Amino acid sequence: MTPQAPTPAYRRLGVEERRSQLIDAALSLFAHRAPDEVSPEDVAEAAGVSRPLVYRYFPGGKQQLYEAALRSAADELRHCFDEPREGPPLPRLSRALDRYLAFVDGHGPGFSALLQGGSVVETSRTTAVVDGVRRAAAEHILGHLEVTEPGPRLRMTIRMWITAVEAASLIWLDEDRLPPADELRDWLVEQFLAALEVTARRDAQTEALVRTLLTDA
Amino acid sequence: MTPQAPTPAYRRLGVEERRSQLIDAALSLFAHRAPDEVSPEDVAEAAGVSRPLVYRYFPGGKQQLYEAALRSAADELRHCFDEPREGPPLPRLSRALDRYLAFVDGHGPGFSALLQGGSVVETSRTTAVVDGVRRAAAEHILGHLEVTEPGPRLRMTIRMWITAVEAASLIWLDEDRLPPADELRDWLVEQFLAALEVTARRDAQTEALVRTLLTDA
Repeated sequence: MTPQAPTPAYRRLGVEERRSQLIDAALSLFAHRAPDEVSPEDVAEAAGVSRPLVYRYFPGGKQQLYEAALRSAADELRHCFDEPREGPPLPRLSRALDRYLAFVDGHGPGFSALLQGGSVVETSRTTAVVDGVRRAAAEHILGHLEVTEPGPRLRMTIRMWITAVEAASLIWLDEDRLPPADELRDWLVEQFLAALEVTARRDAQTEALVRTLLTDA
Repeated sequence: MTPQAPTPAYRRLGVEERRSQLIDAALSLFAHRAPDEVSPEDVAEAAGVSRPLVYRYFPGGKQQLYEAALRSAADELRHCFDEPREGPPLPRLSRALDRYLAFVDGHGPGFSALLQGGSVVETSRTTAVVDGVRRAAAEHILGHLEVTEPGPRLRMTIRMWITAVEAASLIWLDEDRLPPADELRDWLVEQFLAALEVTARRDAQTEALVRTLLTDA
């Protein structure tokens, strides 16, 4: 996923770096406060820059900062799925979940706020970013399972599990991060396998997949 | 859930009836179009009333109509959970799911749009309505399971399943309502039991519950 653009000129690099710095500052604030409680002024203070500078980069103010932070978090989330296609698939899923839960843990309430839009108005644009991450997660899982043409039942099972993981991680944050991350991870992997096993009763493709997963495990 | 208010005076009843008529017209339009494609003019036409009349009831226009329709749909959804506490719990869950899927089927794309906010800006107010339905669903399920003090693991399992059902029904609409509703319903009930069985490995309360469910089934 490394960008293929030519090395940018000095000035452009400066612009991108500054932008990243401001987004990082916004994300660190979102980790403790809802998006609509984070003003461009707060971001300026956290980044140690002037208020007008923040507005120069984000003339749309709060909403634009929120969207930029959401996109940046979405990119980071996608990196959680970067797992080499080596060894049995379920331990790979465990490792991806470890990274995902570390991301959720690190971003704290900001993660919920980013996902749910907080009180900042949510637009179809931000919904599309979040849906893009969900779709990417489903594609990654199917890729690791070496399924190239998933049938509707298998696809539905995997998408349901992804939504359930999202719900679980929001609840986990609400419940003071209990159970511990490694226990939650194991439980989510077991839920994944159990959901596939239920689908396998009605779907030959899923049945074959479950057999492979249990053999490899 | 019958309102306990005294019988309203003639004029007030007329107002409420008119309001309901307009909301029903909006809901029937949402069943085929995204909320932001439904204008107060369309609602006026569908209800056979004048445009100014719609604006008199919904001066906030599109957004207010959307919120009123969402609240009305949320009330209807809650009625899906009205199931007598008689007989084994899993068939009760099946019957509630039948009503839920009939609701989803009847509202079609409007259901997705209502849940996801479509392109109409979503506010914390509309998010709270949708979350209220989810919470009510979880309470109903725990009530039917006769669990008065659910531990965090059991609660998380049930909330995850509710989110997964929501995701499944959105996908179901996308996939031309396949598999057939009764098959989807059985599969969702089996997913419910399987999710509880996974949790039961780590949680004594859930373990006891699963034992009861399997005995009653």
